[in-house]
Amino acid sequence: MPKQAPEIQLAGIEIPDRSGQAKYRHLAEALRQRILDGRLSPGTRLPASRVFAAQLQVSRNTVLQAFTGLIAEGYLTGKPGSGTFVTDSLPEAFLHSQPAAPELDRQSPLPTDDPPQELELRPFRCGAPSLQDFPFALWTRVLSRQSRRLPFQAFGYGDPGGYPPLRRAVAEYLSTARAVRCQAEQILIVNGSQQAIDLCGRVLLGKEDVVWFEDPGYPAAKDCFQRTGARLFPVTVDRNGMQVELAQRQCPQAKLAYLTPSHQFPLGHSLSLSRRMQLLDWANRNGAWLLEDDYDSEYRFSGPPLASMQGLDRNDRVLYMGTFSKVFFPALRLGYLVLPPPLVDEFQEAKQLADRGCSLLEQAALAEFLEQGHFARHLRKMRLLYHRRQLALAAAARQRLPAEFRLQISHGGMHALLWLPPGENDRQVAERARQAGFQVEALSNYRLKSTGLPALLLGFAAFSEAQIQAGMESLATRVLLPV
Amino acid sequence: MPKQAPEIQLAGIEIPDRSGQAKYRHLAEALRQRILDGRLSPGTRLPASRVFAAQLQVSRNTVLQAFTGLIAEGYLTGKPGSGTFVTDSLPEAFLHSQPAAPELDRQSPLPTDDPPQELELRPFRCGAPSLQDFPFALWTRVLSRQSRRLPFQAFGYGDPGGYPPLRRAVAEYLSTARAVRCQAEQILIVNGSQQAIDLCGRVLLGKEDVVWFEDPGYPAAKDCFQRTGARLFPVTVDRNGMQVELAQRQCPQAKLAYLTPSHQFPLGHSLSLSRRMQLLDWANRNGAWLLEDDYDSEYRFSGPPLASMQGLDRNDRVLYMGTFSKVFFPALRLGYLVLPPPLVDEFQEAKQLADRGCSLLEQAALAEFLEQGHFARHLRKMRLLYHRRQLALAAAARQRLPAEFRLQISHGGMHALLWLPPGENDRQVAERARQAGFQVEALSNYRLKSTGLPALLLGFAAFSEAQIQAGMESLATRVLLPV
Repeated sequence: MPKQAPEIQLAGIEIPDRSGQAKYRHLAEALRQRILDGRLSPGTRLPASRVFAAQLQVSRNTVLQAFTGLIAEGYLTGKPGSGTFVTDSLPEAFLHSQPAAPELDRQSPLPTDDPPQELELRPFRCGAPSLQDFPFALWTRVLSRQSRRLPFQAFGYGDPGGYPPLRRAVAEYLSTARAVRCQAEQILIVNGSQQAIDLCGRVLLGKEDVVWFEDPGYPAAKDCFQRTGARLFPVTVDRNGMQVELAQRQCPQAKLAYLTPSHQFPLGHSLSLSRRMQLLDWANRNGAWLLEDDYDSEYRFSGPPLASMQGLDRNDRVLYMGTFSKVFFPALRLGYLVLPPPLVDEFQEAKQLADRGCSLLEQAALAEFLEQGHFARHLRKMRLLYHRRQLALAAAARQRLPAEFRLQISHGGMHALLWLPPGENDRQVAERARQAGFQVEALSNYRLKSTGLPALLLGFAAFSEAQIQAGMESLATRVLLPV
Repeated sequence: MPKQAPEIQLAGIEIPDRSGQAKYRHLAEALRQRILDGRLSPGTRLPASRVFAAQLQVSRNTVLQAFTGLIAEGYLTGKPGSGTFVTDSLPEAFLHSQPAAPELDRQSPLPTDDPPQELELRPFRCGAPSLQDFPFALWTRVLSRQSRRLPFQAFGYGDPGGYPPLRRAVAEYLSTARAVRCQAEQILIVNGSQQAIDLCGRVLLGKEDVVWFEDPGYPAAKDCFQRTGARLFPVTVDRNGMQVELAQRQCPQAKLAYLTPSHQFPLGHSLSLSRRMQLLDWANRNGAWLLEDDYDSEYRFSGPPLASMQGLDRNDRVLYMGTFSKVFFPALRLGYLVLPPPLVDEFQEAKQLADRGCSLLEQAALAEFLEQGHFARHLRKMRLLYHRRQLALAAAARQRLPAEFRLQISHGGMHALLWLPPGENDRQVAERARQAGFQVEALSNYRLKSTGLPALLLGFAAFSEAQIQAGMESLATRVLLPV
């Protein structure tokens, strides 16, 4: 004669007053809990459905549904008429082995209810575009139009290289604006420049392969390459960019050089033509790759735009990459790689394995934005705006700071360098600034082995001229020149 | 006295009649070409801008802009008044070393102008949802509303774990519908299930680590794990899912087991409760991980939904993953991982390095879709539709095929198995079917080491009942039962 479940074993089951579906699931979960933690032991007979329903004040149907589910899962066994029992054959190890985990309290405030970290931009945050100047209304119209217009068949799995019209529009834009030599098939659409770097690491680098890395340089690229198991060889940067001869002398057998030739990050210089050619020559002789990260070349304020290094390459050694995050907004995760034709298949395969390709709709909207000239118009507007902000930052620094603080602006970009008096510790200064409410970075944090004067990186793109002036005054009095 | 550029060296430069900006770039590119290929040698003096402009029938300003650009790049040197020269110091190796690559002919038709591969769905393509039944009009309205409503500050870099309201909505959905025990902070939003698998491989597996892999199993997961350098241990699947005891005996030291417990891919069985518990016990004792891929569990047509394995786990060994691609549409690249709390930080870091997080807007729209009940409504509709289609496929097979062909339908999903008579070669049959215009897959292609009867995978979700009937008739007469 099987044991009957005493009332105490079923005590505490309360069914919240929700829809029918939620009720039977709740009941099933409560019973499952009691079986797993041993409160209902193997062989125990459960109350008849009608009786149990009355006890719980739910419909008999709810009880039957819960029983059916638990039978299907193997917790209960039962036949109509002869009753419902806790299964005998549950592996013993799982019973009584541990107390049930405490029920999650879904009413308690979740940490993610807090305002997202760093959502608020404060001077002088780097790498942040001016979001309030992006034409979101236009973007929304373009998105909606594309979403309505695309045939439903287009919403299946797409081309892993990217949405073809976008690839064509990017190829057209890069060949006109950046003297990149490419056809649409060489374009790989990726989820922002971070994925471009990641895919390069995965496809081009094996364990222990060496990467020439600009010093100081871009930390997210450093972390990404290191994760692949590659070794970084830091190459000091001077006013002409990476010191190529030094790298060639000390470490000729590198597999890849990661470069920001148009506007070195973070120092802001351009890589000289003769060094570009040395690099191309070295890569060609050694079968090495050059990854040209043209991360903010759209923002060149003075002088004609510098042509890309990719356009000089005649031996398929350069991979060129860029992103739309800085021109549009960072929450749009779309960028591109321009691949030498022999690498196209392997990168598409890697992208396929990484995530099967980018989401369609924003690609389609972006293609229209480029084709219709909205992109070029927005770029022209931002170039003027950022140039004014750059000059405002320089003027504010001249006005508020003594001569031993030197603000270095370059031919473009979205940040400037504030050189501190020799002997200052830029990490400590940055920390003081953060405590005073600023978002600034110390140049030392971007260095690998190189040494040099202390400096702060000051982003200016996201702040109005008034914010820049007030920010510099406050930075000067509260952080840089404490009485 | 410097050489003057003779007219012959500049012959052939023709400036197309476009806007001013395009003209100077075109001229600069033509000069750059001639310098690089040696037609213009170091030290050569270029014509005076006024003269050159007249020759080319362009404005003098166009010539000056081109010169300025090339001077900035280092190809030319020059001072106002004394003339403009090809730079002397260009590295010799680059001059005359190779002929200039042929100009790309942008007018020629690009391969990507062809219709995208496999855009057209033909019976009985697997894994494809019924796109024409997705409420695109509603989706577009939700997207537009989110795009208009979100404050511009939200479009900066977001939380690498995903958009917080979406994480909350997913946690809520999974705990109700799938008995997953989680809080929003455990959710990582990813670009589809492919990225979930990829991140698991990257975070959890080192080189030579062993993965228990269902045999037959999901090929994209296999490729992904193998890419990390892990070794797969194929574990044969029977009617109760993966043969866990066999795996424990032969290969107890695996680091990860990749599982499709609700609906084994491709065989369609559920993993039995006792095997689930054996797996949890093994994982807990060995510090191994269980990756539960719940890829199409939304589509369960008969019986109550099976609870997830994650919900049984009391020791933080299960990672649970799913995707919205199959319920929405594959071109929406959004899925999720539910992580044991101790793994949350490491996975967020890996996602950060892979692509810094998913695009915002579709996440926001998806959150609204879930919160407002649109998702549940669509799911209910699709469940009925797919169930009818599954039954139509079974009926068509019974009607058109003799008894030695057995169509196996399971409790849900989007495909069925058509078992072929013993002795048939399913790869050859699938190839004949493809030649006859079908999109079908051979079961053998999903096997690693296991052997078994030949079968075809027949997807039914994307095809109307009429298409299914006609398709089965045609498949029978043209491929399976040739006279």
